[in-house]
Amino acid sequence: MSASDFPAWSREVAGRIETVLADLLPPSRIAPARLHDAMRYAALGGGKRVRPMLVFAAGLVSGASAARLEIASAAVELIHAYSLVHDDLPCMDDDVLRRGKPTCHVEFDEATALLAGDALQSLAFQLLAENRLADDPELQLQMIQLFAVACGSRGMAGGQAIDLDAVGKTLTLPELENMHIHKTGALIRASVLLGAHCGQPLDAASLGGLDRYAKCVGLAFQVVDDVLDEESDSATLGKTAGKDREAGKPTYTALLGLAEAKKFAGELLAESHDALAPFDARADRLRELADYIVRRDR
Amino acid sequence: MSASDFPAWSREVAGRIETVLADLLPPSRIAPARLHDAMRYAALGGGKRVRPMLVFAAGLVSGASAARLEIASAAVELIHAYSLVHDDLPCMDDDVLRRGKPTCHVEFDEATALLAGDALQSLAFQLLAENRLADDPELQLQMIQLFAVACGSRGMAGGQAIDLDAVGKTLTLPELENMHIHKTGALIRASVLLGAHCGQPLDAASLGGLDRYAKCVGLAFQVVDDVLDEESDSATLGKTAGKDREAGKPTYTALLGLAEAKKFAGELLAESHDALAPFDARADRLRELADYIVRRDR
Repeated sequence: MSASDFPAWSREVAGRIETVLADLLPPSRIAPARLHDAMRYAALGGGKRVRPMLVFAAGLVSGASAARLEIASAAVELIHAYSLVHDDLPCMDDDVLRRGKPTCHVEFDEATALLAGDALQSLAFQLLAENRLADDPELQLQMIQLFAVACGSRGMAGGQAIDLDAVGKTLTLPELENMHIHKTGALIRASVLLGAHCGQPLDAASLGGLDRYAKCVGLAFQVVDDVLDEESDSATLGKTAGKDREAGKPTYTALLGLAEAKKFAGELLAESHDALAPFDARADRLRELADYIVRRDR
Repeated sequence: MSASDFPAWSREVAGRIETVLADLLPPSRIAPARLHDAMRYAALGGGKRVRPMLVFAAGLVSGASAARLEIASAAVELIHAYSLVHDDLPCMDDDVLRRGKPTCHVEFDEATALLAGDALQSLAFQLLAENRLADDPELQLQMIQLFAVACGSRGMAGGQAIDLDAVGKTLTLPELENMHIHKTGALIRASVLLGAHCGQPLDAASLGGLDRYAKCVGLAFQVVDDVLDEESDSATLGKTAGKDREAGKPTYTALLGLAEAKKFAGELLAESHDALAPFDARADRLRELADYIVRRDR
């Protein structure tokens, strides 16, 4: 990646991941065509691509090759895409708008959306197993393991379950934090660690610092999401605004109020920078990315 | 495994996989408890355990250790369990009875069943990555890859999509075969190959023979399923009988008639034995398993 400014770099990553996913996803002309169409619909053509940016930015710290980072970021983004497809289904959030387009089950049908999500998850693991991601294949197995844990019942899927259980309840701040650490935090941490592992081996202290950074950024991401859900309109967000509040979902803004939620996001941003203090300029993209995540408007 | 007769051996494998899954699945007391309950409900307490038997029987051919075969068979069975949970959902087959019990979404709720299936898939990959399955980690990565392909859009999930698309249509025999090669055949082939790879390296011809065996057995399994769906009652099957016919799903019995479908199953059984001809007595469990799959009554 070039030494350009952050907006140019982030556009470059977003463009690259779009190309990579378009290449790696099965073509629509191959049977079963409707399933492949739905998978492509869910994964291509949008999204902030924050997780791929985290993979690439973390890879800069360890000097990882672009080829490896492309695969790792594609795997992460496929999991993210599958989670959105399943999350939007009528039995979950029952949402009709995503990234400014009809959700997958609206564009296709529920059964196809269900299977597309399932197949996107399989494809993510396939990519991580069939491409060289680390010099040491034992490390690559560990990468697949940490990724699987981040996806599963003690990671993202578990976070969705906690979320389901929380609808209509008043959570405490630690309970809300626990939900998000799983629901969005697990995959964000996996993004940073996968990206870092694609390069030269890092010592335990460095990996610990990156993990702390990722934890703060993941939580900040969610706090800002809640703030935006409260402050923005659907056209800006590309998804239904105010929906979480109406659905009785616990949010940081409901719990803390808008001003305190914004302050909390700022504190998490500061802590994410603090976690990167031992790193040199190679961690600058991670720093800029944290700033972007907290200051974005959609 | 002991040199006992086949019924004793198959009971031993079924008992062992039950214990192994009970150990490997997250305990219900760990949060999110309801999700973990649903995962355990879906994976434990029943099923024919045909796929674990295939893993163990194939492992005998290559002299694989029981410890490795337990992990491989657990991974396969978790994928099978997840596919049943998603397949039974209202937007798919909308079934209320499975293994003589309410289906997962009936016992819990749709959202929990959806997430339980998702998390079972992640857990399967986690098991394959975090345990030693082959002396060579590169081979283990290949095993994960072949497993992921078998699960995905060109394997099991793809087969489900072909199945969806076929409802109410008259398929040709090759089209019906193509559906089943994906829907059930892919995971059955993966079971045999994973089991074999857990042991000493086999040459390409042996792996080819095992793959041909698995292809025949997988198809025979489905033909017999269609015959049983036509001939049995729900109490014997532990699931709703005659349902496929009523749903307008293409079946071998609808396409060939009952007598011809049974004859076809017999031909596939003969070919599966033929594929094993080059193997010595270490393939006897595979032979007995093929016989069992074709001659079972549920």
